[in-house]
Amino acid sequence: MTLPDAERMLRLARRAADEIQPGMLAGLGSGTTAEALVAELGRRVAVGLRFTGVATSIRTRTLAESLGIPIMPLDEVETLDVCIDGADEIAPDLNVVKGRGGALLYEKLVAVRARRYVIIAAAEKLVAQLGTRMPLPVEVIPYGWARSAQALEPLGLKPTLRAAAGQPFVTDGGHYIVDCATGPIAEPAQLAQDIKALTGIVDHGLFIGLADAAMTIDDAGELAVQERAAR
Amino acid sequence: MTLPDAERMLRLARRAADEIQPGMLAGLGSGTTAEALVAELGRRVAVGLRFTGVATSIRTRTLAESLGIPIMPLDEVETLDVCIDGADEIAPDLNVVKGRGGALLYEKLVAVRARRYVIIAAAEKLVAQLGTRMPLPVEVIPYGWARSAQALEPLGLKPTLRAAAGQPFVTDGGHYIVDCATGPIAEPAQLAQDIKALTGIVDHGLFIGLADAAMTIDDAGELAVQERAAR
Repeated sequence: MTLPDAERMLRLARRAADEIQPGMLAGLGSGTTAEALVAELGRRVAVGLRFTGVATSIRTRTLAESLGIPIMPLDEVETLDVCIDGADEIAPDLNVVKGRGGALLYEKLVAVRARRYVIIAAAEKLVAQLGTRMPLPVEVIPYGWARSAQALEPLGLKPTLRAAAGQPFVTDGGHYIVDCATGPIAEPAQLAQDIKALTGIVDHGLFIGLADAAMTIDDAGELAVQERAAR
Repeated sequence: MTLPDAERMLRLARRAADEIQPGMLAGLGSGTTAEALVAELGRRVAVGLRFTGVATSIRTRTLAESLGIPIMPLDEVETLDVCIDGADEIAPDLNVVKGRGGALLYEKLVAVRARRYVIIAAAEKLVAQLGTRMPLPVEVIPYGWARSAQALEPLGLKPTLRAAAGQPFVTDGGHYIVDCATGPIAEPAQLAQDIKALTGIVDHGLFIGLADAAMTIDDAGELAVQERAAR
């Protein structure tokens, strides 16, 4: 039996919401899957759950606040108890690619400060190797963006500027995104380092060594939780 | 004899302006010293010099255009013939520290695209070792800036947020600057790499392996040009 997507997301959101215990400081992801979680948390807050969220995008902040979830600015936070977010590709070692929603920079800023980072996704996002399902989003400085994008090519990336309504898509941080065709990524950690080192590159969708667990749900509604080996 | 500063800057600007030949595409730096050069180029354009500039800041673009110097957006440029800019510290190997004026990101974006990169400065900026004269400016993403600044501390940096009129100073790119006490920097190339690798850090004032020449002028108005050994 194949479950409707909305029902799958609801089941996944319910399981993921159990990660957030009363009193916790929790990073709230961005994108469709994470928003299903925020909606579920809103329902729990309405019936008495007390926790504080840290948003990974302006959109998530707005949604969470509209549901009565208190949101704390990242600058006032030393460490988060947990952060839960979606992903576009999940490798067996729990390295992931994110950024299809354009929020990768703030997502990563929150993720690196979380003691536990949990990826939630439909099981279709599981891949044998990163770079096989989606282009890799890279966040670039608008000034001279074309030259910065060109500097990605020697790394084997083929960048295309992301557009929205005929204009360059602009992130919450005021930058552009170039979506890069990569082919299967043989060494994600090295590629991540090489991209970040470039002048004009702000960040990229490779989240290496960050996820502690991946929670997925398949077509039939079967949940699976994969924990990473201890760091 | 000690020359007045304005006279020294004028002499330096005249010598530096000779680097820009008719028809060239030239990066124009930011800050007091570079602005003296832009003023000199404006005078030369008024009497017939034809070249095109690429600006390293909104302020420099405005100044250059007001003087009749045509400015091309960085995105339309493949390679610049030359870029001339100031610096806050110049080491014997021509590695430099920049960013006191807050324009380091755009300055670096232009510098990396120049076939020849020339630093112009008062001779007081010459140092035996970087990190001895000025704090190191680091450009950070405003969202969660305090945590990003904190991540600099294990690298031996002591960051202070730069303020202007009681508010955080905001760069042309929309970011903040943290000025970092460093002490003498033993391995500038390694430090540059370590800083740039951090999530939330956009760039920093270390310009490593970029300058091809340093043109300085001492108190007495004596000019010196130091060329870097071939790359």
